[in-house]
Amino acid sequence: MTMWPMLLDMSRDECKRILRRLELEAYSSLVSALRAQGELSKEKRKLLQDLASTLNISMERHRAEVRRAVNDEKLATIAEHIAGPNTSTDWAIEGRRLIPLMPRLVPQTAFTALANNVANIAAAENAKLPPPVNTVKKNSKFAVHIHFLLTIHGIEEC
Amino acid sequence: MTMWPMLLDMSRDECKRILRRLELEAYSSLVSALRAQGELSKEKRKLLQDLASTLNISMERHRAEVRRAVNDEKLATIAEHIAGPNTSTDWAIEGRRLIPLMPRLVPQTAFTALANNVANIAAAENAKLPPPVNTVKKNSKFAVHIHFLLTIHGIEEC
Repeated sequence: MTMWPMLLDMSRDECKRILRRLELEAYSSLVSALRAQGELSKEKRKLLQDLASTLNISMERHRAEVRRAVNDEKLATIAEHIAGPNTSTDWAIEGRRLIPLMPRLVPQTAFTALANNVANIAAAENAKLPPPVNTVKKNSKFAVHIHFLLTIHGIEEC
Repeated sequence: MTMWPMLLDMSRDECKRILRRLELEAYSSLVSALRAQGELSKEKRKLLQDLASTLNISMERHRAEVRRAVNDEKLATIAEHIAGPNTSTDWAIEGRRLIPLMPRLVPQTAFTALANNVANIAAAENAKLPPPVNTVKKNSKFAVHIHFLLTIHGIEEC
């Protein structure tokens, strides 16, 4: 006698929805992992094609996932450290749209004048600051010194 | 002039760790999605093999992921609803351990007598209740009636 039901209490509709989510997430995480490994080789493209047909991924969605991955700074950083520079070219080509996006006009609302004003003030303030490439890195000597000073004065870093 | 750094401030070591995590997660979610689709076909096994070599997944880890998926009630429920009954046989064979786990003795501690006592009392109480297979399902007529009664009396369901 089975004491417990072997299956969960889910309707067919729920199951279909969850399966679709699993398929989409699996494809997405695979594209991320392959992008982080470096260049898009022929074998990887073949692998993605096989997988796309098994997981019912359309060409359009495949391209969208590739665009997401190729524009991801974290994945680009990993690829640069692991496989060297300039690994994104083939990925960028793979993800290219067949029909480019239509340019959209900036919407005009009652707050546009105020928003423009604030944006200009913020941009003027930002222009006085050094660009992020010239600021401290988290593992630099300077950062270590700051951390030491904060620690001996009992100040918590944010 | 680039205003922003194009790459994130991560060390090579961090990158290697994140890449490994991405590879493992991608393989894991793919095994889940394929298991939820139903039986393990020849094509799916081939696909998993190709992917395992690309993502540096060992045979042992592949088997462990398959065992995780085949013992997952949610994935089993989805497979049953989508592809029909008895889809787990080939998956179970694929995930089988080459060397069975050693049986482990139940540890004896100062609390063993007390724990056994409580377990026996709880089991006796549970034996008086109907088994879960015979209890109400969330979409059954009975459940809808209960929900209606609770609603008209302004009682919140937990």
